[in-house]
Amino acid sequence: MSGNTFGKLFTVTTFGESHGEALGAIVDGCPPGLELDASDLQHDLDRRRPGTSRHTTQRREPDQVRILSGVFEGVTTGTPIGLLIENTDQRSNDYSKIKDQFRPAHADYTYHHKYGVRDYRGGGRSSARETAMRVAAGAIARKYLASQGIRVRGYMSQLGPIGIDFKQWEAVDSNPFFCPDPDKVPELEAFMDQLRRDQDSVGARITVVAEGVPVGLGEPVFDRLDAELAHGLMSINAVKGVEIGDGFTAVASRGSEHRDEMTPEGFLSNHAGGVLGGISSGQTLVAHLALKPTSSITQPGRSIDIHGEPVEVVTKGRHDPCVGIRATPIAEAMMALTLMDHFLRQRAQNADVEVDTPRLR
Amino acid sequence: MSGNTFGKLFTVTTFGESHGEALGAIVDGCPPGLELDASDLQHDLDRRRPGTSRHTTQRREPDQVRILSGVFEGVTTGTPIGLLIENTDQRSNDYSKIKDQFRPAHADYTYHHKYGVRDYRGGGRSSARETAMRVAAGAIARKYLASQGIRVRGYMSQLGPIGIDFKQWEAVDSNPFFCPDPDKVPELEAFMDQLRRDQDSVGARITVVAEGVPVGLGEPVFDRLDAELAHGLMSINAVKGVEIGDGFTAVASRGSEHRDEMTPEGFLSNHAGGVLGGISSGQTLVAHLALKPTSSITQPGRSIDIHGEPVEVVTKGRHDPCVGIRATPIAEAMMALTLMDHFLRQRAQNADVEVDTPRLR
Amino acid sequence: MSGNTFGKLFTVTTFGESHGEALGAIVDGCPPGLELDASDLQHDLDRRRPGTSRHTTQRREPDQVRILSGVFEGVTTGTPIGLLIENTDQRSNDYSKIKDQFRPAHADYTYHHKYGVRDYRGGGRSSARETAMRVAAGAIARKYLASQGIRVRGYMSQLGPIGIDFKQWEAVDSNPFFCPDPDKVPELEAFMDQLRRDQDSVGARITVVAEGVPVGLGEPVFDRLDAELAHGLMSINAVKGVEIGDGFTAVASRGSEHRDEMTPEGFLSNHAGGVLGGISSGQTLVAHLALKPTSSITQPGRSIDIHGEPVEVVTKGRHDPCVGIRATPIAEAMMALTLMDHFLRQRAQNADVEVDTPRLR
Amino acid sequence: MSGNTFGKLFTVTTFGESHGEALGAIVDGCPPGLELDASDLQHDLDRRRPGTSRHTTQRREPDQVRILSGVFEGVTTGTPIGLLIENTDQRSNDYSKIKDQFRPAHADYTYHHKYGVRDYRGGGRSSARETAMRVAAGAIARKYLASQGIRVRGYMSQLGPIGIDFKQWEAVDSNPFFCPDPDKVPELEAFMDQLRRDQDSVGARITVVAEGVPVGLGEPVFDRLDAELAHGLMSINAVKGVEIGDGFTAVASRGSEHRDEMTPEGFLSNHAGGVLGGISSGQTLVAHLALKPTSSITQPGRSIDIHGEPVEVVTKGRHDPCVGIRATPIAEAMMALTLMDHFLRQRAQNADVEVDTPRLR
Repeated sequence: MSGNTFGKLFTVTTFGESHGEALGAIVDGCPPGLELDASDLQHDLDRRRPGTSRHTTQRREPDQVRILSGVFEGVTTGTPIGLLIENTDQRSNDYSKIKDQFRPAHADYTYHHKYGVRDYRGGGRSSARETAMRVAAGAIARKYLASQGIRVRGYMSQLGPIGIDFKQWEAVDSNPFFCPDPDKVPELEAFMDQLRRDQDSVGARITVVAEGVPVGLGEPVFDRLDAELAHGLMSINAVKGVEIGDGFTAVASRGSEHRDEMTPEGFLSNHAGGVLGGISSGQTLVAHLALKPTSSITQPGRSIDIHGEPVEVVTKGRHDPCVGIRATPIAEAMMALTLMDHFLRQRAQNADVEVDTPRLR
Repeated sequence: MSGNTFGKLFTVTTFGESHGEALGAIVDGCPPGLELDASDLQHDLDRRRPGTSRHTTQRREPDQVRILSGVFEGVTTGTPIGLLIENTDQRSNDYSKIKDQFRPAHADYTYHHKYGVRDYRGGGRSSARETAMRVAAGAIARKYLASQGIRVRGYMSQLGPIGIDFKQWEAVDSNPFFCPDPDKVPELEAFMDQLRRDQDSVGARITVVAEGVPVGLGEPVFDRLDAELAHGLMSINAVKGVEIGDGFTAVASRGSEHRDEMTPEGFLSNHAGGVLGGISSGQTLVAHLALKPTSSITQPGRSIDIHGEPVEVVTKGRHDPCVGIRATPIAEAMMALTLMDHFLRQRAQNADVEVDTPRLR
Repeated sequence: MSGNTFGKLFTVTTFGESHGEALGAIVDGCPPGLELDASDLQHDLDRRRPGTSRHTTQRREPDQVRILSGVFEGVTTGTPIGLLIENTDQRSNDYSKIKDQFRPAHADYTYHHKYGVRDYRGGGRSSARETAMRVAAGAIARKYLASQGIRVRGYMSQLGPIGIDFKQWEAVDSNPFFCPDPDKVPELEAFMDQLRRDQDSVGARITVVAEGVPVGLGEPVFDRLDAELAHGLMSINAVKGVEIGDGFTAVASRGSEHRDEMTPEGFLSNHAGGVLGGISSGQTLVAHLALKPTSSITQPGRSIDIHGEPVEVVTKGRHDPCVGIRATPIAEAMMALTLMDHFLRQRAQNADVEVDTPRLR
Repeated sequence: MSGNTFGKLFTVTTFGESHGEALGAIVDGCPPGLELDASDLQHDLDRRRPGTSRHTTQRREPDQVRILSGVFEGVTTGTPIGLLIENTDQRSNDYSKIKDQFRPAHADYTYHHKYGVRDYRGGGRSSARETAMRVAAGAIARKYLASQGIRVRGYMSQLGPIGIDFKQWEAVDSNPFFCPDPDKVPELEAFMDQLRRDQDSVGARITVVAEGVPVGLGEPVFDRLDAELAHGLMSINAVKGVEIGDGFTAVASRGSEHRDEMTPEGFLSNHAGGVLGGISSGQTLVAHLALKPTSSITQPGRSIDIHGEPVEVVTKGRHDPCVGIRATPIAEAMMALTLMDHFLRQRAQNADVEVDTPRLR
């Protein structure tokens, strides 16, 4: 309720700073009886993990997660699930210089004014390292959703100026970019290599989808499925835009083309991205998110220090030249958490509902 | 908590169907001592009201709001504020045909499956008529925020394919489109006239900004200001995309250009749109939203009925050919409600904070 | 979330002052398909209504409730239910004297310091008149619970010094005290008549029970069923104590007597009051509440005014000499609301659970 | 939000089973700048710790707490505080017998039916061991409250049939019972020694008070301070009753005696226990709670197993013959957490309020 909890019935509360002792989370509201062990979480954590290619930060964190409660004899018990990842590679750099400076486009300036005090080591709480816990919690949601026939997956759909068409799911996990088009990978690698030489960074666009979503998830008018999904996705570090279905393309389209007509055989299109009136339609749920370029680059930038004096900031340390590259598992996690919460909410209120009307595929 | 409440400390809970007896809201958490009467709300309601030009629905609703509680001798008392608008122009059409059909791209199909029963008159709860209450509640937030030096305003930045540059605030309220460029209005009118002749509809893009926002609003990691704003804006009927600052443009930009450098005189740019790390930076808060074209058009469309049989749907009744035209006051309301809630949250937790560091303008 | 909402999934949000225009509520989260009309609510409202005997306040309010939304063609639709009661007998007394005084043991002093401004007419928001909306909302919960075999009922178990044993449910609604022992009624009447002559007031103890509660309601560790019930009951005006089952009697008892042993035929006793570990056991849920004597009496009392000066306060107007007399329907409502919320929460999280173990009666 | 979170702005979310790997908590919403280290928490944990006298369970847990986040260079940063206590003395008993049985008056039966699966080792999540985390979190609240002049303290006011009058605070921490009357301690010791010989258990009554509470805490009508306090206290294991101020004694009292009259020098009495209309009055906040006798006794008891067959249960293991003996620090923690949350809520909404009226002492 105070900012670090996501969800209403399936809640995830997280803690932890980039260079603190540990990251942790409490997942509350998981239905009992779900088979679960740490390896279920580790798979997704490893996909998000830094240091697995030359295109991401070289910080080496095993991100080994422990389940401390809520699982007994291999299944969830319905009680809260405690998760913990100890930080192991938080280098004791000399932070004496950076501690009084605000890195441009970072949260340094805003954390300083909001809280008056901040853990400046590696960005503290504002570091994307925090998202490891989202991925761990999301893996629990994904496993439960899978048991209900719902599958959440994502991929990179644009890297800087390079658009990427969806080709095949098989390709996504076989390259460091989560790129669904294997033929495009060399171009992405060349682009990133040049970017590093330029000492610059770039943004990315991620697409995340859920298949097998039943009709009925989402609670209008404010807790629409798309609104809560936007909340979840926009809460990821560096995200500056969220689209559902056609998104901003819908602005210039006409109602006669955009409306997804229906026949007994199914919907004829999916411009809406699987949500009608804030409620899932049973079509594939589709969202896109825009991530800004990493602010930490080695080119010097103008800024001020805590005394208001001008400084020139050069960000050293280990950074992702494109935070979007590791964002796909995080986006999947946030979509899974949103769906999980709404799956439970829908069942709470509408478990009595039965209609004869066939559901479209 | 069950879908019809927005906010955590400044909460708005709404009820009401398009053709029911009345719309209502309870605004809880408003600080006491704010001068308030119904005319403060009526101003914004009149801006959203239908039937004020030939470009919107011809339903005629005075949308006269009553304040039933929470205000005494002209000021708020800190107790919940009850709001009520009686529906007066809900025509008793013959709904016998539409009641068993699902209009394409409407919420008919999803409401039917979710709830098993639905008020099919004019879309029931899924009608945009519901947003009148957001505007009424938002007006309270706007008045309080104004007392703190925060001003929320919006305008149309694109109508269908026609982009609109910001020119002047004065123009916005002097044309039916909330268009900030007076020279563009004739083109918009011609476009809309042709669209009506085509019996079609179109989308729109709205921009909404807040000036005077202090540094520090937003509660990372999940209740970031931008995430909650995305939640609020995406919860508006027909919205399919939300951007903060540069939004999707940030994908193709480079860190060296995108990062907003700082000098003692202030930020040198505002690509971030006034939010850093999920916390307001003191710069102007900027958001854009995409609205899809109205689904209710008079061209026949393919659909099914509640028995799964194919039907051809022709939507009669009074509809907006572009729901985006009346969306500006609604978007302003959702931004105001988001800011109001975070203003109170910030003060709850961080009232003790004092820093010597100067705040940039 | 800001104080005037009860429940997490089945939420009730209320507004309204004693002498304002109207009282209202929004009930959000009611499952669709429940047959409902205003008469279902009116029955309980009439039981709580003032002015029905000489032992309660002589204010005459018909308390006619209107359902403004959420019900269509006689059944709930799953959308929020708007409720409204117009105030009709708010006499325009001369409040010039009382407005600057703090009546002893009332909320005048605390409202004044908390909010700086207050509606002093009839106690404003702090008046027990507010509970009419709890009763109206509770009636919806009671009707749904009844459809699930759960029945909530209450009675007076003590009036001032006079203890009342439970004899029969039939008697409860046939006397103005909700007294379950018809032979005791004359004694209660004589006591009350003397009390009025004494110009004094007295407390009462109410007992409320729910039969047919399934095993499993309640969400440990903080949202235990008994904890949430205590929250709901203690939130009623004038309540100073809540007990579950044996309550304070359990302090002096021994484990060998207090523990409710089980046999295949059922529990052998119910000292626990139907809750074990914060979860309903399937036994009858039993709670008791203590209400303090009405603070509004015609005997003069010492107090201060808003300038801190000593004053002598004589409370005129129409008051209940024992607020506990009308408290039974309110307590039933709060128990029903608590159970309803937990019924939905239980089903959200544990709908998958199946056990072979027989459930005790 | 799913049962294991307490508070709205200052939230505590806990996890952990009696015999699991660890207990943990996340404290979210703590204002930044509070000096804090683990020793601040350890002091209260040591007061609750088992095995410190012959009158409590002989389980030996050091209950060493670690702060994993949210504190930097000795002060809180405003980010969530992660807490962890590793379990060290969870003996690997042979649970093969107990795992299929329901101990009478325990949560075994209800957890089994609610969740279908349960960690039967030492009561799992339903064990009072869980309360260690409440005490740890409560210590943070207490430290902050102390900085605002608010002091929370408690004592035992009844052990089984033995009433205990308050004599002096100094005595409370110098005996294993939290008894405020040093002359009474020998009687309590004799009573407990006899009780152990009887192989029985007994209940207790705890009183907890807060001094220095400002006027204005509490959010009517549902989130009254007393209602939320009742929620918190009733959520403690084994609690069956909660009273504010005079509690059930108020039933038989008269308005003329019960109402707390005011003079410019202050209130003349405190029957209300420091709350008027659900809002703190500035007087001492007083609550009492009733704890039932421990259900785990070595006398055999009748019960059933998971197949519904009758069994005779003999509870071995290490148990408290009176859970109330260690309950004082837990009750203090819950009162502190409630006050802390309302301190922040009050400041959020009413920070603008200024009145000239003097505040009574």
